This record gives sequence, C-alpha cells and structure tokens, in this order.
Amino acid sequence: MPHEEAGRIYADPLRDFCTLVFQKLDVPEGDARVTADVLVTADLRGIDSHGVARLRRYVDGLRDGTIIARASERLVRETPTTALIDAGGGLGQPVSYRAMKLAIQKAQQYGSGFVAVRNSNHYGIAGYYAMMALEHDYIGFSMTNADVLVVPTFGRHAMLGTNPIAVAAPAGQERPFVLDMATSTVPRGKLEVYNRLGEPIPLGWATDEYGMPTDDAGKVLDNLKKRAGGGLLPLGGAGELMGGHKGYGLALWVDIFCAVLSGAAYADLVYPKAADGTPLPANLGHFFGAWRVDGFRPVEEFKAAMDELQRRLKHAPRAEGESRIYIHGEKEYEETERRLREGIPLGPKVVADLRAIGEELGVRFPALAF
Amino acid sequence: MPHEEAGRIYADPLRDFCTLVFQKLDVPEGDARVTADVLVTADLRGIDSHGVARLRRYVDGLRDGTIIARASERLVRETPTTALIDAGGGLGQPVSYRAMKLAIQKAQQYGSGFVAVRNSNHYGIAGYYAMMALEHDYIGFSMTNADVLVVPTFGRHAMLGTNPIAVAAPAGQERPFVLDMATSTVPRGKLEVYNRLGEPIPLGWATDEYGMPTDDAGKVLDNLKKRAGGGLLPLGGAGELMGGHKGYGLALWVDIFCAVLSGAAYADLVYPKAADGTPLPANLGHFFGAWRVDGFRPVEEFKAAMDELQRRLKHAPRAEGESRIYIHGEKEYEETERRLREGIPLGPKVVADLRAIGEELGVRFPALAF
Repeated sequence: MPHEEAGRIYADPLRDFCTLVFQKLDVPEGDARVTADVLVTADLRGIDSHGVARLRRYVDGLRDGTIIARASERLVRETPTTALIDAGGGLGQPVSYRAMKLAIQKAQQYGSGFVAVRNSNHYGIAGYYAMMALEHDYIGFSMTNADVLVVPTFGRHAMLGTNPIAVAAPAGQERPFVLDMATSTVPRGKLEVYNRLGEPIPLGWATDEYGMPTDDAGKVLDNLKKRAGGGLLPLGGAGELMGGHKGYGLALWVDIFCAVLSGAAYADLVYPKAADGTPLPANLGHFFGAWRVDGFRPVEEFKAAMDELQRRLKHAPRAEGESRIYIHGEKEYEETERRLREGIPLGPKVVADLRAIGEELGVRFPALAF
Repeated sequence: MPHEEAGRIYADPLRDFCTLVFQKLDVPEGDARVTADVLVTADLRGIDSHGVARLRRYVDGLRDGTIIARASERLVRETPTTALIDAGGGLGQPVSYRAMKLAIQKAQQYGSGFVAVRNSNHYGIAGYYAMMALEHDYIGFSMTNADVLVVPTFGRHAMLGTNPIAVAAPAGQERPFVLDMATSTVPRGKLEVYNRLGEPIPLGWATDEYGMPTDDAGKVLDNLKKRAGGGLLPLGGAGELMGGHKGYGLALWVDIFCAVLSGAAYADLVYPKAADGTPLPANLGHFFGAWRVDGFRPVEEFKAAMDELQRRLKHAPRAEGESRIYIHGEKEYEETERRLREGIPLGPKVVADLRAIGEELGVRFPALAF
C-alpha cells in the first residue's frame, strides 16, 4: 500500500518538488524557490513541524485565496535604518526574505537595520531569516506573531501565538550561535505527539477550559480547535511561581514588535474568519533586524571570544547523568549535516500527503532515496 | 533600640542621601545623582533587591577600588547607529545613562541606535534605561550580564548571570509596556526569602552541587558562595522538558550582546579575584538600544493599537480563581504611585545599614516619615 510508505529523500529533489508545487499555484519562480528553501531548511534542521509536513496548509491557503500568489508588496515607510513593508497578503517567506535582505543592506550602510512586515502569512522557521545575517558576519534577529494558542498568565483563553524569537551570531572555529525558540513552554506539535501516544503531558505545558493546568493533551487540542478556552502555557508555565509571566512577557514583546509596530493583526485577532466561518487573510506581522558586529568590535576579536565562550560552556562540569552541554543551534547544525548525507526522513502520512499534492497539481513526487 | 527601627521614607530625601554618600566617596555630582536615581527608582517600583538595600555593595566597591569613582570613560568605536564605550571600571549607572542617551540620539538621527559598554559594574535595574526611551516615544532596550549564579542546561556549575532583558514601549491612555525580566526562573533574592522562612523552594528554581534539582534554598546559597556547584536554574527549569534550554539560550544571548560584542568579561569570568582572593574589577558589559516608533508607523496609530492590545488582554476571561490579567510594568507603575504617596518602606536591617553608611561618611540619614 503506497499510503504506508515512509522513507528518506534528499534536500535537492524535495526543494525542487516544492518549488514546482508553488509555481503550479501561480507563485512566481523566485518566490516559489525561497518558500521551498525555507521549508526544506526546517526539515534539514530537524524542525519537522515547520518543514514540508506543512506544505498542505500553504497549498490550501493559496487555493482559498487567504494567501495571494502574486501579492502587491509595498514599501510603506522608510528611514535610514528602519522600514515597514506591507506584504499584500502574500506568502510569508518571500517577503520575509526580502525584508531581511533590506535590514542587512541598512546595517551595511549605517551599522544596523530593522524591517517590520504586516499583512503577511506564516513565514516558517524564525531562525532562517536571522541566519541570513551570518554570511555577512552580522548578527541577525527575527520574530513573528502566530496563530492563537497561548494563554496569558492568569488568563483562561488563548490570546497570543507561540511568537518565536530568533537570534543568530557568528563564531570562528565553533558553529554560530542560533537561538530559535517559541516563547511558549512547548509548541502545539508536542501535544499532538503525546496525544497520539496516549500519554499524559507534564503540568505546566497547557491549561484546560477553566484555565487550570491539565495533563490531558487531547482535551487541550480539542478545546483549541473549538476556541473553547485553555491552551498552551507561556515559557515558565502557569501563574508566576515558575516565571510564567516572563514567557507571557516575551510573547507580548514579539506581538508588539511584529504587529503593533507594523499595523498587522495582534493577539487573538490574527487568522480572522468571516461571519459564515470562511477564513480571511491571516494578517500576521514579522520583525527583522541586523547588527554589524564590527560596529562594536573587530569581527575577528568577536569570533575568537564566541569560540572561547562556547568552549567554556561545553567543557564545564555536567550535571549528574548528563553527557553534554549544548550551545543553541548546535543540535540543528549536526542534524543538517546528517540529513544532507542520509536524506530527510519523511513519515508515511507526510509522504502520502506530498504525493497527493503532486497528483492534484501534476507535479511528479520524486522517488524516495530508500 | 535604633537597630530595630523600620519605617517609610520619601523618595526625594532618600535620593539626596544616596547622592551625598556617593559624592563623599569622590563620585562627581552628576554621576552621584544618576546612580542615586537608579537605586531609588528600583525602590519606587517595588524591586527592593536592586534599590538602596544594595548601597553598601557600591560603597564597598568604591572603597576597595573595584569601582572607580572618577573613571576615564572612553568612546572606543562608533558608526552612525552603533557605538562601544569603555566604562573605565566606573559605576555602572552613569555610563549606562550616557550610553542610553547616545542610543536615543542615534535613533533620533537614523531611526535606531545601539550602544555596548564594557569594563563596567552592576548597573541596577535594566528597566531604568529602557524606560528612558519612553519620553521620546521611542522603544527602549537594555540588557546586562551579571554575577555568576545560573547553571546552563545539563550543567553542574553556575556559568552565567541572571542576565536580564528589558524592553519598554509607549502607549496612549494605558501605561507603557515595560518588560524587565531576569532570564533565570527566580533571582537569588527569592531563595534568600525562602531560606529566612525555612521553607522549601519549588523544584525548578535551583540545583544542588551535583546539578540536581533541590528544594533546599540554604544549601544552594551556601554552594553559590563557595562556588561548590549548583545554582539558579534558567527560566524553564532543569533539563529541556519545561523549556529550561530556552531560558539558558536567553541568558547566553544577553552574554553575547553585553560581553562578547563589547569585550567585557563573559560567562563565569566576571567578578574575577586575584590569587590571594582580593576582588578585582567586575568587567561587566551592557547593551542598550532605541528604535523610533515613527520609523515604522505614526506614533499615534502605534499608541492607539498598544492601548487596544492591552485592554484586549486585561478584559479577557480569567482562569478560575484569578482576579486580574496584568500587562508588564503595570504592577510597578501602581507601586510607584503608592510609594510616591506613602513613602518607600525600609526594613530594620536596611535602615541600620543606611544609618551606618551615613555615620561612616558624615552624611545625615534623614528622619523616617513614620
């Protein structure tokens, strides 16, 4: 049965497949390539929830018109180091790619640059854009607001997204530092995994419809779908005892930079629906930044100190039973090397879904590597 | 017995007292005023751990030469939107005040501005500097590294500071958003409170000398003093289950911006000691930033959206048993209003300590209000 097929696929053919899929949906070739690259980069880094497993949602959005294939992007406002771009309801990835390029260009000229984007859609992994700064030896920054899943401290309803923050800083011999974190304790995908396994989730991940911590992943997912109350908890969990108000504060910061500063939808106003339940454009917002390292210190000195800091941490004594202290981005770099070598593993559901998309649009899904 | 005396004191006489104390220790008047204002502002905001209760440590530092009263501050590097300042081993507050002023000035001219500081000392509350941007309707940003207290994920020893992040954004009718958070689950002061009460701390706040979660605050504080292993846990607690690697990542980000970018001491290299145990200059680093709101969007539109976002959250349904959803900074603004009206409450230990400092330096400690 072909629907039970799982296997590995190399990044290049997978990227080509996604590019053709987007082109068939009238996305211009350049935009299609960027969007495909952001998705496949997520898979390479091991962030499967944001990779090609998500292709169907973009396809659906392009088909139902909530994502516009040939959007009229527009530079709304600009100063030497800041800019606002209206994405015109297009795909999040290409506008974000261009916004980050603009931030880097401004940094090149003035030392730092920042671009906010409104009227956009899901932009994939936050880290992709922050990492674009690395090839210039700059520090990169990226944030986005997102679908309503997270409950504010002391609140009962989901009012914010998992609103990630990404920061990338170059190093010398060591790998770059790449922090790419949702500001919730865990992403929704983590609950889906526990739900499939029928296992209780730790208290501190999510709340029920009364706003109380729960270990029942299925109930939380069901409540979120129905917007019946409850949702994911901010980093730090419920209440203030373990610092949940800090995770809530980080999520709010992201919403302010991405949406209040840009004029995008904020809080629970993202992904609105018409009176009859039809989805309307998401109107997400993003924020990008770049700083020249040599605006502060010679690049070689910075890199040498980055190496030394990383080694200091990695060689520090470990907690009992632990074998390794990580630097952020390290696991993902190692996973990328492995998957470039061995291919990207795809589960049977994802393979079936990609095949179906290919058949619907007349794009051949490549043979699995093994 | 005067040592048992506790009471309230108004901000103005307390600020004047601290200013005179610093001046007696040869700090120039302007610098003394700024430093006193940062301390008293912490007390007004209810962050007692960073207020005048800390005066003794600054006095000690100025006396033993680890803090230099008339430091040679130096602008080391500058681009239109970035700068690096060497604090020359002086007090953290005045150099930070000037660095933030410079960031704001750069933002005024170019849309955004960022200043890193090295060779500095404890700068008080991070939020003070971020909030300086508010009077210009700019967004403010402030970070610092700090004394070694926090254990990296899977590590056994404290390797990082509580490294706070502060972001301040203006609003219209509502109060500004002021996030000012340590990137550890709790500050050391929280452990001191539990230790005095003889109560167990929640697992997830700190680890013992094996790097394992513990509920024994006294043991953690003792281990930290002896650098015997263990320490505070990053926001998210031990391991990765509740997101501790995210808090660790935030702390590392702060260290990179404040210390690696500036050339200050990083990780566990801050507050070094000579071979004979004599304390050497702390060599802390800070990072400041300012963005013009109108570099992205007209200020009035931004403020209206900030108000609406805040109201949306504050009026959202509350978790069972909860009476209020807060916006970051709200509690501190309310506390400031209360303490401006009623005076700042000082415990008997702090009063005795301030009186002693006054006697040592020949500065009259003002009468308590009641």
